[in-house]
Order: sequence, then C-alpha cells, then structure tokens
Amino acid sequence: MATQELLTKGKLAKEASLILANVSTKAKNQALDEIRLALDKNAKSILEANKVDLEAGDKKGLSKAFLDRLALDGKRIAEIQAGLKVVKGLSDPVGEVLADWKRPNGLKIKKVRVPLGVIGIIYESRPNVTVDAASLCLKTGNATILRGGSDAINSNIALVAAISEAVEKAGLPKGTVQLIENTDRALLPEFLKLREFVDVIIPRGGADLIRMVTENSSIPVIETGEGNCHAYIEKTANQKMAIEIAINAKCSRPSVCNAVETLLVDAAIAQAFLPKLSVELLKQKVEIRGCGQTRKILPSAKEATEEDWEKEYNSLILAIKIVSGVEEAINHINKYGTRHSETIVTKNKRAAELFTKGIDAAVVYVNASTRFTDGGEFGFGAEIGISTQKLHARGPMGLPELTSYKYIIHGNGQIRA
Amino acid sequence: MATQELLTKGKLAKEASLILANVSTKAKNQALDEIRLALDKNAKSILEANKVDLEAGDKKGLSKAFLDRLALDGKRIAEIQAGLKVVKGLSDPVGEVLADWKRPNGLKIKKVRVPLGVIGIIYESRPNVTVDAASLCLKTGNATILRGGSDAINSNIALVAAISEAVEKAGLPKGTVQLIENTDRALLPEFLKLREFVDVIIPRGGADLIRMVTENSSIPVIETGEGNCHAYIEKTANQKMAIEIAINAKCSRPSVCNAVETLLVDAAIAQAFLPKLSVELLKQKVEIRGCGQTRKILPSAKEATEEDWEKEYNSLILAIKIVSGVEEAINHINKYGTRHSETIVTKNKRAAELFTKGIDAAVVYVNASTRFTDGGEFGFGAEIGISTQKLHARGPMGLPELTSYKYIIHGNGQIRA
Repeated sequence: MATQELLTKGKLAKEASLILANVSTKAKNQALDEIRLALDKNAKSILEANKVDLEAGDKKGLSKAFLDRLALDGKRIAEIQAGLKVVKGLSDPVGEVLADWKRPNGLKIKKVRVPLGVIGIIYESRPNVTVDAASLCLKTGNATILRGGSDAINSNIALVAAISEAVEKAGLPKGTVQLIENTDRALLPEFLKLREFVDVIIPRGGADLIRMVTENSSIPVIETGEGNCHAYIEKTANQKMAIEIAINAKCSRPSVCNAVETLLVDAAIAQAFLPKLSVELLKQKVEIRGCGQTRKILPSAKEATEEDWEKEYNSLILAIKIVSGVEEAINHINKYGTRHSETIVTKNKRAAELFTKGIDAAVVYVNASTRFTDGGEFGFGAEIGISTQKLHARGPMGLPELTSYKYIIHGNGQIRA
Repeated sequence: MATQELLTKGKLAKEASLILANVSTKAKNQALDEIRLALDKNAKSILEANKVDLEAGDKKGLSKAFLDRLALDGKRIAEIQAGLKVVKGLSDPVGEVLADWKRPNGLKIKKVRVPLGVIGIIYESRPNVTVDAASLCLKTGNATILRGGSDAINSNIALVAAISEAVEKAGLPKGTVQLIENTDRALLPEFLKLREFVDVIIPRGGADLIRMVTENSSIPVIETGEGNCHAYIEKTANQKMAIEIAINAKCSRPSVCNAVETLLVDAAIAQAFLPKLSVELLKQKVEIRGCGQTRKILPSAKEATEEDWEKEYNSLILAIKIVSGVEEAINHINKYGTRHSETIVTKNKRAAELFTKGIDAAVVYVNASTRFTDGGEFGFGAEIGISTQKLHARGPMGLPELTSYKYIIHGNGQIRA
C-alpha cells in the first residue's frame, strides 16, 4: 500500500498531465524561462540547502567524488540555467503528425505525437538532474515525479520549491513537477507500483539502482546507462588510430557509461600492438587486467577473471582479451556486453560489416570512440538518458523519446461489418 | 530460480535471435511457406492432439465458448494457413534505415531497424495464436518462446512440432520458435524473470492475465487488449448515426476488446435519444445498467454502480450514464477508461476537437465505431495485439511494432574532446 504522500502526488501529477498534454509550446517555454529566473531569485536558499546536504554528507564520510557531484555553486547554477535555455530552444515534438492516411471506407487516420503522461525519475544525489529532467519532461508536456537520492534531499526540496513557484507563475498546473520528499528506501517499491498514476519510470544511476527498479516496477521502465562497452582492434586496424580510440574511450571520462571496459585484440597483431598500447595506458595510470595470452605479452598485467569480463569498472581499469578474429569478438561482446556502445577499429570492410550486423547494442561504431554515445554528440540538443533496452527507445533519448502517440480517426458514421 | 526447461529454451532462443537478426527476407518467407506445408503434412496429428484437449476440456466442464476457441478443424487450419500467406506477403521492416545524418565531426550516423530479439508470448487456450504469433515474430527476425494456456497444451505441442520441422527444413536455427511445455502456473513468474534471455513479453488475453504479467515481470512488457471503451453521444449528434454506432460498437462482437462498455449521453438529448436507443438495444438482447437519471427515462434499466463504470463486460451488457457535456464525458473516460478506444458522435467541430485532444487513449474516434481498432482495419495487414500502454507502441501493433532499432556509426578515427 502506497503512502499518502505517494498517492496524493500521483493523483496530482495525473491531473496535471491531462492539462499539460494540450498546453502550447509558448506556455511551456515561458515556464522554462520562469524556472530560469526562479533559480536566480532563490539562489541563496538553494545554496544554503545544498550546504546542509554537503555537511551531512561529509560527516557521513561520503567520497570526494560523491560530494563533488552533490555540490552546487554559482557556476553550476549558471550551467543549469544555460541548460534551460537550450531546452527552450529545442522544437516541441508534441502534436507532430507522424503519419496520416485514408482507409477505403473513408476513415481518416492520423497518428499524432502526444506526451507520455506522468514520468517518474529515480536518480542519485545529483541536484543538477532535478532541474534537467524536470525541464525536458515539461517541454514535452509530461508531468514529473522526481525521486532523488536521500543525500541531496535538502537541495532538491529547495530546487523544486523554486520550480513550483515558476510553474505556478507561468499558469501551469500544480502537479507539473513534484518531488518525493520521503527518501526512505523502503518506499521505493511502493512508488514503482503506482501504475494508476505513473506511465513510465526512468531510473538514472548505477547498475544497482537500475536493477532494483526493473525488478520491482510494475510500471513500464526505460532502463538507462549501464555500460559494459568494448573496443575491438581488428587485425587490419590502423594501430595509431586504435591506440587513440582506446585511450579516449577508456580515459577521457572513465566514470561514464560510454567508457570502454574491455579491449579485444586480434591475436594476429597482439604481439606488435599491446606493448605500444601499454605504454600509453601506463601514462594514463590505467590498471590492466589481461587474459592468459595478454599476460604473456604484458607480464605486469593482473589476471582477468570471468568477473572482469562482466564488470563496468567506471574507473581507470581496462580488461584486455586476445581473440582469434571478428567472430570471437562478436560472441564475447554479445555474451558480456550490456547492449550500450561497441566499436571496431579496422580497415577491412567485411569485418566492419560483420561487426555492425552481428553486435546487439544500441550503438555500434566503426573507427570511432564509444564516447560519442550521447544526446549532445548525436545532435539531439539534450538528453534524458541512454536507453540500453530495446523497447520504445534505444541509445541517447532526446525529446521525441519522451513522447508516445495516439491515433485520431475521423469518420462519418462508419460501423464495422 | 528458473527451471531447466526455461533456462535451456531461453538460451537457445537467445542464440537463435542473434542469427535471425541477419537472415534474409527470402529465407524467412521460405520458412513461412514451409510452416504452411507442414501444417498440411501434420494435419492428422494436430487434429488428434486437439481432440485430446477438447475431450479433457469437456470433462473439466469448460464453457462452450471456451471449447469453441480451443477447437481446430480443417477449415480453421486452412484459415491459419491463409494467415501465413498474408504474413509472407507483408514487407519486411528489418533493415529499414529510419534516419541518417552526418555530424560536423564527420561521424555518419544511421538508425536502422532491427528485430526486438527474443519475444515471449503468453496467451490463453487458442491454438491459432500459436501459429499466428510465431509467424509474425519470425517475419520480423525475432525468436519466439510461446507459453500457451494449459488446456491447449497437446494442440500446441503438435503445432510447434510442425513449425519446428519447417523451421529446420528452411535452414533457420533450432531456437526460432519454442513452446514451454510445462504449463504449471507456478512457473510463469519464473519465465517473467528470464531477463538474460528474453527481450519482451507480450501477454495476449484477459485483464487478469495481463495484470498478473505486468505485476510479476522484470522483462519489459507490452500490455495488450484490456478495453473498457466508451461512446459519447454529444448533444448535436445525428441520432440515427449515434444509434447505429452504439449498436455496432456494443453488439457486433461483444467479447472483443474494442467493443463499447459504457455509453455517455448528453443530458440535453437524453430524453429524446434514450428511448429510441433502448428499443434497438432490446432487439439485440442487451442488458442496460443506468445511472439515476438514465433510470428515470428508462425505468426498466438496472442500477449502475461504481463497479459498472470500471468493468469490461465482454458481453451484452451496456452501462449508460447521462453527462452534462463534453467536459464531464472526457473526465469520466479518463478516469475509468483503459486507454484503448473511445468515440464521440457529434456534429460540433469544437466538441470533437476537445474530445480528441482531451481523451488519453490509443485511438480516439469522431463519428465512427470503436470496433475499427484492429490491425486489419488500420491496413497493417496483420496484428500481434492492441497495445494499451504508451511506451514503444500504442494501438494496433503490426510488423514494425515488433522491431527496435540500433545506431550504426562510421568514423575515421574520431575521438571525443
């Protein structure tokens, strides 16, 4: 049984969503402007609330990296505001006619984009996501129920207070953006069963969060972000390019989901390639975990276990496995990958084709870094996350991915025989 | 923990799906031909197995309607075979390039349709669904795991034996179409947790089945078919048309999901309209359950309770409620409807627009019967079901709705700054 807070917020969001579905682009853009202004007006209380979270987190012994993601300052608020401007500038997908046709019986069928309805966002203690997610959902006419991490609760309450003030000022319904204030973990499964009010759940965070959500939700979920990505260096690869791609994919931002975790190298070039690669990896302080063959070439590498092939390190560790060719590479990736982003470095067209056809992932690259799997890099302007499932949306999700459609059919009295 | 049968079949399906994703349309069509021929060749064993099911069902006291849906004969097998020909004739969506563009950094991005992978179909004791679902999934390059109702198990085993023989003859992988033979209900939740192997679950059946699946599945589900549909007779309606539509939507096939369950009538015309409608409903032996105002006009109507507004009768019962206008009609439908199909009968353009915009449903009609919500009537050629959820697909689902996409990106060494 859901708590009163959940039921009240769910009901309010549902009501709001029915209104938001038909709000004009102009009114939604105005609300985005108002939110931007409200962040200025409320900057002081937001930063004070954030300070409370940071001090509590410090006392609790949260890691430096964690506290850094939690922290807000004038510069970060300005970045969030810049994001709101970008979302305002994007074109509104709602109302787009995706198809229309006429049936022999005269029925005129139109397939029209509509909002998803009520979107639940579950995320970790990153207050920037609060505004980011709310603005993308608002632009697409969805009502949002946010459930952020408990360590950011004071920041989130302050941010959503500012958002709510702006939403009201813009004349949008009260339930447009709401925050679940009770962050007791035991309540999460109840939120995930509010099918009556919530149309979609989008978890944003680590593998554990996503697993918990998919296993407990009776609401449809869009899984995002778990990324055990691979780079496969085929034997004809330009080896200089291969090293650049491997270093970029592993080191440019190891904590993100589109970073590479395992490198697969063709046996035919391993002897020549791995020592050169190893020099560059060591410069970047990357720890190598290799298969038996790899360790014959790079004796200082640790031994990779089955667990390593499955692991999303999210840090400067790289597993390396020597494979006999493209087929073994494909099999390894389809077995251990999370269907996120995979790349092959090759000059061989046939190998590239086998790879792009054979790999089951959201994004498959030839001769490029996996780090490009990102809404911005795809040209989407903004992104709510990267879907690693196959239903609804795959890969980076921009505004159209936050919509559904309905069929509107005009007749003149048709009945079915 | 899943049983050995589930694990073995899951693994085999997964392997098959990776091959099927790249099988040519020609090879898939050939397999559909082989299945058609195998149904002839194995007709005797299929009908014998069906007889075993029918006798057991009769002994068990299953209803006549149930046994009718379970029964196969030469004519029904011929219908199934005709269906296979239709699916063969449909164009194959796999491989379609949905979009392609080039980024300023030279990356060439292509969005390409791919199969969903492994589809689990859970359905009731209707053996025609076995071949129907398997053929649609096969045509779209998906592997299928079928879990049909226990009362059709012998028929299904015989049908899937014929299908498997055909699939093998056509050179497709062994795991292309499989049946779960252990129909113990207690195993269903285990099937619904085979996330490692199954990409999507599609339940086909009544509300209880669908609810059980959505509540227990950790695999993404496409909900189909629950239909509490409404017809709203607005005060400017052509009343003759309104009666025709109401009778068609209620009576032409009351057991299906796109039949109407509740009629909403504007107060302004109720006095004139309801008695005329009532005459026609009585001719069709429809039981009327009315709100208080309705019963003042039609005193013989039973009293409708809150439960009636929520109910999908699937039989010749119609609830009638008098409403003050389009706004109350929209609110009633959005509160009690299952987001399937809703219709307004009106001559007023403004009312029609309010209705089509305000109603949250897969299909919204103006001046036509809800009975047209059907893949065939939409011109899709075939249908796997009617989605009542908003993710992935809404309304009738044809072949494209059985696919996902992946991004294939070609570069020349791009790394991310």
